[in-house]
Amino acid sequence: MGDERALARLAVWRLSGGALSPGEAQVIVEEPLQIIVDGAPCAVLMRTPGDDISLAAGFCLAEGLIEGPEDLGAIQHCDREDAQSVSITRTGGRRPPARPAALLTASSCGLCGRELIADLRRRLPPLRGAAPLSTADLLAVGRRLRQAQRWFAPTGGAHAVALFDGAGELLAAAEDVGRHNALDKAVGRLLLARRLEQACVAVLSGRVSFEMVQKAARAGVPIVAGVSAPTDLAVALAQEAGLTLVGFLRDDSLTVYADAGRISDLH
Amino acid sequence: MGDERALARLAVWRLSGGALSPGEAQVIVEEPLQIIVDGAPCAVLMRTPGDDISLAAGFCLAEGLIEGPEDLGAIQHCDREDAQSVSITRTGGRRPPARPAALLTASSCGLCGRELIADLRRRLPPLRGAAPLSTADLLAVGRRLRQAQRWFAPTGGAHAVALFDGAGELLAAAEDVGRHNALDKAVGRLLLARRLEQACVAVLSGRVSFEMVQKAARAGVPIVAGVSAPTDLAVALAQEAGLTLVGFLRDDSLTVYADAGRISDLH
Repeated sequence: MGDERALARLAVWRLSGGALSPGEAQVIVEEPLQIIVDGAPCAVLMRTPGDDISLAAGFCLAEGLIEGPEDLGAIQHCDREDAQSVSITRTGGRRPPARPAALLTASSCGLCGRELIADLRRRLPPLRGAAPLSTADLLAVGRRLRQAQRWFAPTGGAHAVALFDGAGELLAAAEDVGRHNALDKAVGRLLLARRLEQACVAVLSGRVSFEMVQKAARAGVPIVAGVSAPTDLAVALAQEAGLTLVGFLRDDSLTVYADAGRISDLH
Repeated sequence: MGDERALARLAVWRLSGGALSPGEAQVIVEEPLQIIVDGAPCAVLMRTPGDDISLAAGFCLAEGLIEGPEDLGAIQHCDREDAQSVSITRTGGRRPPARPAALLTASSCGLCGRELIADLRRRLPPLRGAAPLSTADLLAVGRRLRQAQRWFAPTGGAHAVALFDGAGELLAAAEDVGRHNALDKAVGRLLLARRLEQACVAVLSGRVSFEMVQKAARAGVPIVAGVSAPTDLAVALAQEAGLTLVGFLRDDSLTVYADAGRISDLH
């Protein structure tokens, strides 16, 4: 999509060098999108408009509402000025109106982190095989992510995710006000193009929480690298799922939190 | 609370200066906390342990489940290793088992941003009166926030919120893996101490989304300043609610997105 619906211009006052002066600022757009599954309202995401169908498809995969593109029937995008929604009908009618899995954050019954991981583990698909990468390869995909970021520089308010194949080739990049949405958009785009099975590396512009690792694992992606810090639970889930987790991916430095044998320099 | 449950140490590998070496890293702890209201599961928050009762009280205020401390009856903290929860019983039995308001992000019926604001506007309390602040005052509270941050430096993964009175005195500061939780914790702590009516300024370590402004407005706080970018919808809500919104609050610079007559240099 173009930038015209993702960025907005506002009149502001800026204090700089001790002087206050009027100016203009660009901000990232945040708008609600309703996700409807099999006719029932499922979630409302606060997202940056654009790539909404990819977002909805990726969200449904992450939440365990679908297992792959074969479960997707009709997808309808409603983009009225007063209401934006994506309606997904699942094929076969073989699925119950399941509660989204990660909305366990809004519905579960008080699991501790360890149980959360054990519970999730049972519902994760196997991660796909990927040849080990060198740390130089990881620095390179980090640079590609920065090149793909169009909205961070003007707004300071956008996250980005890029997915790469096993050879480090860029498959999809997405930006959004929310880092969860950016990952869902990138995954959803490949899912719809039936190319998700090529995705081996996810590079994230921000921090790596439990849910980000969960979404990557649900997409079968075996290597996750974030520009910022992971949480303890994100590392624990990566270790349990056999996922490679890298943090603080910068120009010429990085930290390996979980290896799983996929970082060639380490073996 | 002490740091012992909020920070964890992990063995990592670090690439730096072209060399890969083993080391240790601190990460912020992320654990689920279940919120139970009037006996019914209401939400599960992924949070950093500590100050859980404040978090639950602030969350209930933000979500419109309570209007003030007088609505809080018994509060019970269950801190077993395998399940952590806070159970809140509201007084008077005069409240229906309401759906949380901001969980409209998980339940509403496809409102657009403008309608979201109009809908919310009807449920916001009046903001409390506050004397105008100078931009120098704002830079000063920004410095105080940085002084109060204990967990960002070691982990790179913690957000912080500090609440100040109208004279710029610190009332409460809180840190958490989630910026929403940090704000709920700080607000909840003052709510429980029956000092929330003193809070005039909220300073946030991160970006300012719609939900952050919503939470501040539900707490009656008239001035919100974030270290990073606001979204367009956050600015729109601030303007509609008459809330002063400042972004990119740094060492010696800031940007004013919504003024509402409370920044003395501008008038």
